[in-house]
Amino acid sequence: MPEYRHDPLTGRMVIIAEERAARPHQFDITGTDTAGNVSICPFCEGNESRTPGELAAFRPAGSPPDTPGWTVRTVPNKYPAVLPGHPSGEAESGSRQEMPPPAADISFRQAEGIGLHEVIIDTPRHVFSISGLTVPETAAMLAMYRQRLAAARRADTWAYVQIFKNVGAAAGASLPHSHSQLIAMPFIPPSVNRLRREPPDASCFWCRMVQQELKQKERIVEETEHFTVLCPFVSRFAGETEIYPKSHESAFDRTGENTLAELAEVLRRTIQRLEKAVFWMKGSLAYNVILNTEPLRPGWTEIYHWHFSVLPSLARAAGFEWGTGLHINPVSPEQAAKRLRGGTENEN
Amino acid sequence: MPEYRHDPLTGRMVIIAEERAARPHQFDITGTDTAGNVSICPFCEGNESRTPGELAAFRPAGSPPDTPGWTVRTVPNKYPAVLPGHPSGEAESGSRQEMPPPAADISFRQAEGIGLHEVIIDTPRHVFSISGLTVPETAAMLAMYRQRLAAARRADTWAYVQIFKNVGAAAGASLPHSHSQLIAMPFIPPSVNRLRREPPDASCFWCRMVQQELKQKERIVEETEHFTVLCPFVSRFAGETEIYPKSHESAFDRTGENTLAELAEVLRRTIQRLEKAVFWMKGSLAYNVILNTEPLRPGWTEIYHWHFSVLPSLARAAGFEWGTGLHINPVSPEQAAKRLRGGTENEN
Repeated sequence: MPEYRHDPLTGRMVIIAEERAARPHQFDITGTDTAGNVSICPFCEGNESRTPGELAAFRPAGSPPDTPGWTVRTVPNKYPAVLPGHPSGEAESGSRQEMPPPAADISFRQAEGIGLHEVIIDTPRHVFSISGLTVPETAAMLAMYRQRLAAARRADTWAYVQIFKNVGAAAGASLPHSHSQLIAMPFIPPSVNRLRREPPDASCFWCRMVQQELKQKERIVEETEHFTVLCPFVSRFAGETEIYPKSHESAFDRTGENTLAELAEVLRRTIQRLEKAVFWMKGSLAYNVILNTEPLRPGWTEIYHWHFSVLPSLARAAGFEWGTGLHINPVSPEQAAKRLRGGTENEN
Repeated sequence: MPEYRHDPLTGRMVIIAEERAARPHQFDITGTDTAGNVSICPFCEGNESRTPGELAAFRPAGSPPDTPGWTVRTVPNKYPAVLPGHPSGEAESGSRQEMPPPAADISFRQAEGIGLHEVIIDTPRHVFSISGLTVPETAAMLAMYRQRLAAARRADTWAYVQIFKNVGAAAGASLPHSHSQLIAMPFIPPSVNRLRREPPDASCFWCRMVQQELKQKERIVEETEHFTVLCPFVSRFAGETEIYPKSHESAFDRTGENTLAELAEVLRRTIQRLEKAVFWMKGSLAYNVILNTEPLRPGWTEIYHWHFSVLPSLARAAGFEWGTGLHINPVSPEQAAKRLRGGTENEN
């Protein structure tokens, strides 16, 4: 059974998941191969039997599960970091978001590694990056994010859901076929929990920040009817980019369906801008996409503002970063935004 | 000029250092080359003119600086993350360890990126890993760490000094010749500052932790007369290993000279154990070494316990880690310690 562990001194939390060690890697050793071996790709249409049975899929009415014909497909992760189960005890209290208290003789806390770990296969086609999806395919992927988040919320067991995407070996992906992941946990990660602001400061930090950025302009990449794309003032990585809805919305699963196509276009264009800026990678830029959405616990609706973070994998965290927590970023967000603005406006 | 930036919401700090972008990389694209091109290696004996002028070196008395004959050599980093300078204002108050207060109209804080960024060239020989150093060479490297830390302390300008080592491209190194780095900063990083425990809890957490680990035994790799080697309970990385002095010592620059040779042996053996455990990398295992030592500000001596962390670079932080701050570790520290104990006791 996987295990959550918490260090009270540093505040560090980890998941010890020995099941993950067996995970196969389809990239070649250089990590520059973006194709892998298509015939054995478990995410390609026709290879449905190579994954665990599907949890959800967009497919024609009447089409049986785990058969071809789908557009987006969600399956349990075959090498999960956390396993289904029910938090022990206290299921009725608000304390589910906490780790168990330390035992009398040890300083550390641990808990069973229960949770959900799902894989969302973005497309039946063997495509490497979001930039290779069509806008409707990207919108369908986002609609699946929304649906799986809503399902995790309904289970009333999970306190936090992280949806993310690792694209390319340098970004931590083991398979080259475009996919996303969802991990649901019974507590709120410490780094998220610290974002909670109590009255009198209980307004949305991000609403104010985006307003200010729109006024200053120098870190804005793009503004559309409903979204703002910017490089954050405290960027950890070269080309780090965020996408915010203009109106205050805390939960991605409650965002309107009518703006999904616009969001899909904005997200896809952001990736295209990054790939164009890092032109020497020839479209094989590795990156992470992170969907930040409100914890599934009371008290977050007023203060949380969902947003996407895109983190290009151009450098690696090294000794200084792991020792101090400070990242050294060789490209200022002002320079990055300027470069990205020069991007791909008319290349859809 | 580089810049420190701080995000009050997430607590994130970064260094924006555009000077770093010009940094050359001598590894080939696969990142598996451990040699690079020796003839142009700026760290090899005879190539002293390829680095900025030396700040310190262990060399025969009377031997002029920047000439061959040295055993360990410290130079300014040619592509620094921070630049020398003096913190503006308030030099007399304790507030130097803080960022400037936020300006009225913005939420973020920024400060000039002043600091020291030094490179410690561990050996004149073109060696990749600590395992390729002799014990006396390793001890000399540690003696240089102590000397440069003491020099940074004497400057009375810096609040925190991070000494670290990136070995191999996968660990963030750009050059394959064994070297270490020192970065001194005018404030204490937030992740370090949170380790401060106020009375009544102002005793050493690490002293108690190591005692407990020695009792439980399952995460202990090795115990010598003066040092304990263990895999921490909350390990973020497979094979993460820490080395603690047995007696309470807060500052590495104040540790006794008489135990440096023993420490050198322990550190070198720890790396050999890891390289043996990850035998399929054939000695090219990439890793970070981090020296954690007390901040250079009052109030840390009782509560801080210097230690080395060794972080093998076997997997990369990916979307989940960046989104939640939680690391997924596929090898429990109990398994790792067991494997490492099987190691290289008699292979010096």
